[in-house]
Amino acid sequence: MPIIEAHVLEGYDNDAKTRLGKALTDAVQLVVPAAPDAITVILHEMPRTHYMRGGTHRSGAPALPDPCAAVRDYLAAMEARDLDSARAMLGAGFVMNFPGASGLTTLEELIAWSKPRYRFVKKTYDGFEALQGEGCAVVYARGTLYGEWPDGAPFDSIRFIDRFEVTAGKITRQDVWNDIAEVKASGHPNA
Amino acid sequence: MPIIEAHVLEGYDNDAKTRLGKALTDAVQLVVPAAPDAITVILHEMPRTHYMRGGTHRSGAPALPDPCAAVRDYLAAMEARDLDSARAMLGAGFVMNFPGASGLTTLEELIAWSKPRYRFVKKTYDGFEALQGEGCAVVYARGTLYGEWPDGAPFDSIRFIDRFEVTAGKITRQDVWNDIAEVKASGHPNA
Amino acid sequence: MPIIEAHVLEGYDNDAKTRLGKALTDAVQLVVPAAPDAITVILHEMPRTHYMRGGTHRSGAPALPDPCAAVRDYLAAMEARDLDSARAMLGAGFVMNFPGASGLTTLEELIAWSKPRYRFVKKTYDGFEALQGEGCAVVYARGTLYGEWPDGAPFDSIRFIDRFEVTAGKITRQDVWNDIAEVKASGHPNA
Amino acid sequence: MPIIEAHVLEGYDNDAKTRLGKALTDAVQLVVPAAPDAITVILHEMPRTHYMRGGTHRSGAPALPDPCAAVRDYLAAMEARDLDSARAMLGAGFVMNFPGASGLTTLEELIAWSKPRYRFVKKTYDGFEALQGEGCAVVYARGTLYGEWPDGAPFDSIRFIDRFEVTAGKITRQDVWNDIAEVKASGHPNA
Amino acid sequence: MPIIEAHVLEGYDNDAKTRLGKALTDAVQLVVPAAPDAITVILHEMPRTHYMRGGTHRSGAPALPDPCAAVRDYLAAMEARDLDSARAMLGAGFVMNFPGASGLTTLEELIAWSKPRYRFVKKTYDGFEALQGEGCAVVYARGTLYGEWPDGAPFDSIRFIDRFEVTAGKITRQDVWNDIAEVKASGHPNA
Amino acid sequence: MPIIEAHVLEGYDNDAKTRLGKALTDAVQLVVPAAPDAITVILHEMPRTHYMRGGTHRSGAPALPDPCAAVRDYLAAMEARDLDSARAMLGAGFVMNFPGASGLTTLEELIAWSKPRYRFVKKTYDGFEALQGEGCAVVYARGTLYGEWPDGAPFDSIRFIDRFEVTAGKITRQDVWNDIAEVKASGHPNA
Repeated sequence: MPIIEAHVLEGYDNDAKTRLGKALTDAVQLVVPAAPDAITVILHEMPRTHYMRGGTHRSGAPALPDPCAAVRDYLAAMEARDLDSARAMLGAGFVMNFPGASGLTTLEELIAWSKPRYRFVKKTYDGFEALQGEGCAVVYARGTLYGEWPDGAPFDSIRFIDRFEVTAGKITRQDVWNDIAEVKASGHPNA
Repeated sequence: MPIIEAHVLEGYDNDAKTRLGKALTDAVQLVVPAAPDAITVILHEMPRTHYMRGGTHRSGAPALPDPCAAVRDYLAAMEARDLDSARAMLGAGFVMNFPGASGLTTLEELIAWSKPRYRFVKKTYDGFEALQGEGCAVVYARGTLYGEWPDGAPFDSIRFIDRFEVTAGKITRQDVWNDIAEVKASGHPNA
Repeated sequence: MPIIEAHVLEGYDNDAKTRLGKALTDAVQLVVPAAPDAITVILHEMPRTHYMRGGTHRSGAPALPDPCAAVRDYLAAMEARDLDSARAMLGAGFVMNFPGASGLTTLEELIAWSKPRYRFVKKTYDGFEALQGEGCAVVYARGTLYGEWPDGAPFDSIRFIDRFEVTAGKITRQDVWNDIAEVKASGHPNA
Repeated sequence: MPIIEAHVLEGYDNDAKTRLGKALTDAVQLVVPAAPDAITVILHEMPRTHYMRGGTHRSGAPALPDPCAAVRDYLAAMEARDLDSARAMLGAGFVMNFPGASGLTTLEELIAWSKPRYRFVKKTYDGFEALQGEGCAVVYARGTLYGEWPDGAPFDSIRFIDRFEVTAGKITRQDVWNDIAEVKASGHPNA
Repeated sequence: MPIIEAHVLEGYDNDAKTRLGKALTDAVQLVVPAAPDAITVILHEMPRTHYMRGGTHRSGAPALPDPCAAVRDYLAAMEARDLDSARAMLGAGFVMNFPGASGLTTLEELIAWSKPRYRFVKKTYDGFEALQGEGCAVVYARGTLYGEWPDGAPFDSIRFIDRFEVTAGKITRQDVWNDIAEVKASGHPNA
Repeated sequence: MPIIEAHVLEGYDNDAKTRLGKALTDAVQLVVPAAPDAITVILHEMPRTHYMRGGTHRSGAPALPDPCAAVRDYLAAMEARDLDSARAMLGAGFVMNFPGASGLTTLEELIAWSKPRYRFVKKTYDGFEALQGEGCAVVYARGTLYGEWPDGAPFDSIRFIDRFEVTAGKITRQDVWNDIAEVKASGHPNA
């Protein structure tokens, strides 16, 4: 039953409007046990000339990029070892924490660290989830890893989850958890 | 600048209204790069007699419980090994996936599985994060573990993250990742 | 999908609010092919101190009575030959038109006119329908008549329809059509 | 004083908007004794991209045709004995009830039935009135009949009223009452 | 035709609401040539729990006092030479400018300055007018003066206008113009 | 915190919208002690087809001119002794009251009256202030005068204030107060 009206300044494209409408719908569902179809969202768009704060017309800022898309693009660039593209997506103060390695700040460090661990690793995604954190968007990506151990033996189906912070559209933090050590310890051949 | 008006049926307590207002504010911030203070949320409460769909008055359902609070309570009950309380918080189809153990469906299985792994484990939380998933709330709890290995040696500062699904106020799924195996493999004494 | 918000002054009881909400829902359905459940009506009630026209607070007038109920009561009083009650429901300029008798202005004229036609007549209703006309509510009541011919023979299932005008809560016009003459002409025994 | 705001999806032409605004005004007048000039209706039009239910954009359906116009066109086609046009305006389950003839389902039956009753009949209208019924629009047309009896003698000023049900723009039911039998019985010459 | 909706936090008394509604009506009339009766103002009151900025509930401040009433009270206190009351109505930085005397900052200076000018002076008001200035309310009081010249001869009907600045409810500036010098110069007896 | 929504008919240009938004903001500040930045104004523009009173679409009237601009233009025309332009700005019933001269109704009278008083006079403005009066806009212009006495000696810094009534865009009344007589009386050389 809830009806949400959002008054926003003109200038958002349809994708941003859809993301906003979806995010507002989700927000309602966190609190109100309404069937999704009973949740209505209406956007009201104001041209700059129809909006004033303190007697002054204001302009809106462009929409933030979809943080899930930003993370997806970043992870794809990293898998393809396209470090230039990946690096362009990073924001000031970027830091990474991996199992057994915390406080990495450059992609080169990450690559050096991973070298003895596997020949390559790729991700199969079960899902991406975004939420608003303190001053940043938080994105969770989870699924399974497949790739090759240093000796060339293949592995797959290893659970992972990544947590990203995306600040003003740039990735500023990555935390990674996975079962690689667990799998190795359990005596899987070649691990 | 966005102004969000939410029309809801009467019957939500102040805590639910605050959670709704906060969730709507967060939703806006995922898309619109406005300073928090520039995001206004107004609730309009409708008595049952002021709301109709299809020419019929409707009543609202009670608010869903705060999913973060539900998870927090569940984790506290588990740490205290208060299985009755913990069990009462579980919903139909509850399933758990831990490093090296997937598809557990009872708390007893979990306890049996953990016995050879550590004497006890407790959690220090860095944060709880909730978002709306498909038909359920998703809660992430992350932080570090401390406790004792089977031989009584202490451990601490081991990173973990838990993902919960909370359906209609009940916990229906828990996925856990942590660095326990990593820490053991790295030759920490006593591990 | 349409959402109708009605801002009204305080002072309407729940029955009036329900009638207003229903009437607004019906109004939408005359034009918009939405499923009834997709039509939402919200009332916003304003205390007198929250409403101004021309810089002056205004008070609302009491709701009009339900015109269908007014007609129903009038017809019941007439069937019971409770002329005092019926007369109290009539407004200035009241006029009646019956098959073969137009321009009657008093209930006594009506009774005199009906005397040679039947001993008594009662109504079984198929439905009441109301709409807003020019300066008055219009109510249609339709169904079938049963009763006794002057010779005491019974009749029933004779179709009728009455049209009423209800001005400021009072009945100001009644037009009646029925198949009595048709039934008589078709040689029904005793007619 | 009531102010009605209607939020509708884009796509209605000016005629439909005027009909909706008028219907909402009428709805208010059925309950609230406000002077017409004190009843304000505002339409808010939403582009598809500004409206969501359940997180999904929805499109509006085209407006229903004016049911009074539909009935008027049908009656004109029937008077002109343009059966093809009239038939095209009928919906599934169409049924007609006339004085002395109920349950007719084809226009041919109607014509056969009327043949012995009059050479021709035409209508002078006093008014058309529409309201929303259960799942259909209801239209009342009333006025007087003129025409020729089977022997060619003219008649006029015979009261009639027709009730139509219009479902999804198609006529699905017609009920007719008139004073033809009354006039004949009252010994009018030639009747 | 304009309809103004004002959403304010709970806590204003009826007088403040009336003043707000009147001020909004006046604001419209400065720009839109609508008949006053065609200007509608609706207040929507929000309890604190229904309003958030930046995800935080906010409380409203108490209404400012009516600046015209504040000025009226001050002028009455001054006429009655009730300096204590008058002084209590003054704000920080209070300054007065009179014909031939600018920059007075205490009521005592004013009284000393006026002593050689008249025995006493009182005001008959033609009107009070208030508007919002930069950071303060501005009030104009105008009318005529009557009183006695130093020699005891009476005078009256001398035009005056006072301009006040009222900051946060306190009088912070008074500018006075009048025709006293003009009247004296024009050779009025005793002036 | 107050949020003001103004529903107006289409047809106002950006300048009129800005003036309306500013006037509404000022109106709020007269009553509510909110920081200017906490006062939001939103205009909602309705095309004629989206607005009805009494079931009838209505058109809006063109915006009134800015009364301050009207007064400014008039004063400039008078200073330039462009009487034709000034006269074109006057409305029916125009009247002027000056120190020592009340009830002037033509610009020629004013000029004749001022001739013995000064050779010429020009204005330096400290501010223009407008408010809505009873059926007219009221504009205050204040500042200082400079010019030459009849003997050619210069003067300056003489305080003045003018009050104008602007009815339907035309100046209908001017009241003037100043310190010319005070300055002369105080024995300024040449005065």
